[in-house]
Amino acid sequence: MASKKNTPLSELLRLPLGPVNVSSLDASATPGYPGKGKQDAPAQTAALGTQLSDLQETLYASARSTQEKAPRVLVVLQGMDTSGKGGLIRHAIGLVDPQGVDLTSFKAPTPEERKHNYLWRIRKALPRPGQIGIFDRSHYEDVLVVRVENLVPEDVWSKRYDEINRFEAELVADGYKLIKCMLNISFAEQKERLAARLANPTKYWKYNPGDVDVRAKWPAYMEAYSAALSKCNTEAAPWYVIPSDRKWYRNWAVAELLRETLAGMGLAYPPADFNVAAEQKRVAAS
Amino acid sequence: MASKKNTPLSELLRLPLGPVNVSSLDASATPGYPGKGKQDAPAQTAALGTQLSDLQETLYASARSTQEKAPRVLVVLQGMDTSGKGGLIRHAIGLVDPQGVDLTSFKAPTPEERKHNYLWRIRKALPRPGQIGIFDRSHYEDVLVVRVENLVPEDVWSKRYDEINRFEAELVADGYKLIKCMLNISFAEQKERLAARLANPTKYWKYNPGDVDVRAKWPAYMEAYSAALSKCNTEAAPWYVIPSDRKWYRNWAVAELLRETLAGMGLAYPPADFNVAAEQKRVAAS
Repeated sequence: MASKKNTPLSELLRLPLGPVNVSSLDASATPGYPGKGKQDAPAQTAALGTQLSDLQETLYASARSTQEKAPRVLVVLQGMDTSGKGGLIRHAIGLVDPQGVDLTSFKAPTPEERKHNYLWRIRKALPRPGQIGIFDRSHYEDVLVVRVENLVPEDVWSKRYDEINRFEAELVADGYKLIKCMLNISFAEQKERLAARLANPTKYWKYNPGDVDVRAKWPAYMEAYSAALSKCNTEAAPWYVIPSDRKWYRNWAVAELLRETLAGMGLAYPPADFNVAAEQKRVAAS
Repeated sequence: MASKKNTPLSELLRLPLGPVNVSSLDASATPGYPGKGKQDAPAQTAALGTQLSDLQETLYASARSTQEKAPRVLVVLQGMDTSGKGGLIRHAIGLVDPQGVDLTSFKAPTPEERKHNYLWRIRKALPRPGQIGIFDRSHYEDVLVVRVENLVPEDVWSKRYDEINRFEAELVADGYKLIKCMLNISFAEQKERLAARLANPTKYWKYNPGDVDVRAKWPAYMEAYSAALSKCNTEAAPWYVIPSDRKWYRNWAVAELLRETLAGMGLAYPPADFNVAAEQKRVAAS
């Protein structure tokens, strides 16, 4: 473990290229976590918050200066029900200035959205320069629920993996940094979380009877996730699998992935596009 | 001061009905602040964060249940350059789950927006049920910069005060809670803040030479603010004037106003719309 102390989390969590069986991955592991465990997670996460806040401001500011390819970040969140996309956004993405975050939750497509190709609504929701986009579910639903529930024929969804790879390569070429996170929970942990929602009246609103129907198809969903993660894991847009049975690790890990990504972008505050000394005189005289 | 300990902040900061001269209001006061000053502001604000987070979740959850007039909150932020709308959003609104915040920054109208009535883009940006909307600038720009810079004739802008009052009364009747905040800074404080931006290369991006041109028209802007705050201060949609020369007070005060508003809405988690015992059995058997 000690030898991994200085290994970036992005290397530890990046899914190796090639075939993967999601069910075989440990959902309760805590790779790269620098603290002692749950007890010091609030302090670890708070420390990240300060750094994230500074980096986000630099990203935001840098978009003000003229650049051919302004930097943009897009975090894609996928995971089974109760895997904690909402909790992650609240606790990890909530560390960042809301002015720099552009959050989109993708639900079942609207009638308007159904008239278009499945990537239409995705393109419309892409973050502007300087923004950190967060996709709560994404175009991957079109090879996950759509595949499992047979919402389109196989010859349609099976072509989407290559389409998605081309789409994401295009985004990366346009200056987007993609952080694709699969929040990986175990079948047993999902059961506990669903039961917890039913044990607490302040959590009833989070429960949907349909979640148990989806749970009954767990193996088919794991197969669909395994296919999506295998086929759409590219050098340009890799997948990160976040062990998510421990909420505190999940939140820390995604915040740290975001921090590493921003820190690696070489962001800088833009120079003045005015005469500083002249403006100082104007202000002094005002 | 002791007698005001238990007075809600909303009462202390609510602008009395009738004519007002904004320039006469103390921008460095700290009414209702429960702590000792700047040194304990982080702790005071963090304590609010926990309460705000819980209240926001209840607001969000309550919108899930069927209601004729689902609760919605809209915070309108107005203030001169450097008054700290951005800092306030970062530090106070940033306390709330980003999933429950719908932020809109209104810039100079686009060509598309100019084709419509000035309230068109405002209506489009109204928060959905369960959301806390934040307007960084608003329809008030149409009686502020528009009036000072003569962007439309007086007989046009002068009719807008009544239009705005009717519009806001309609929102309140539809279930919106409006929190209209004018971030009040002094002429002297603005000078210091502009100078500070020019003294720090990481703040150059926040500086715009046009800010000094606007500053030169300070009396005209104060006249326009005084008119807007006098004419559009209603029982249904009152104005709050936030003394903003002290950033820590400004951030605490708006967070506390939001907390008081949410706490006063009688929000509750919705009951289950399914059979809890039956679902518990289904989950246990899954």
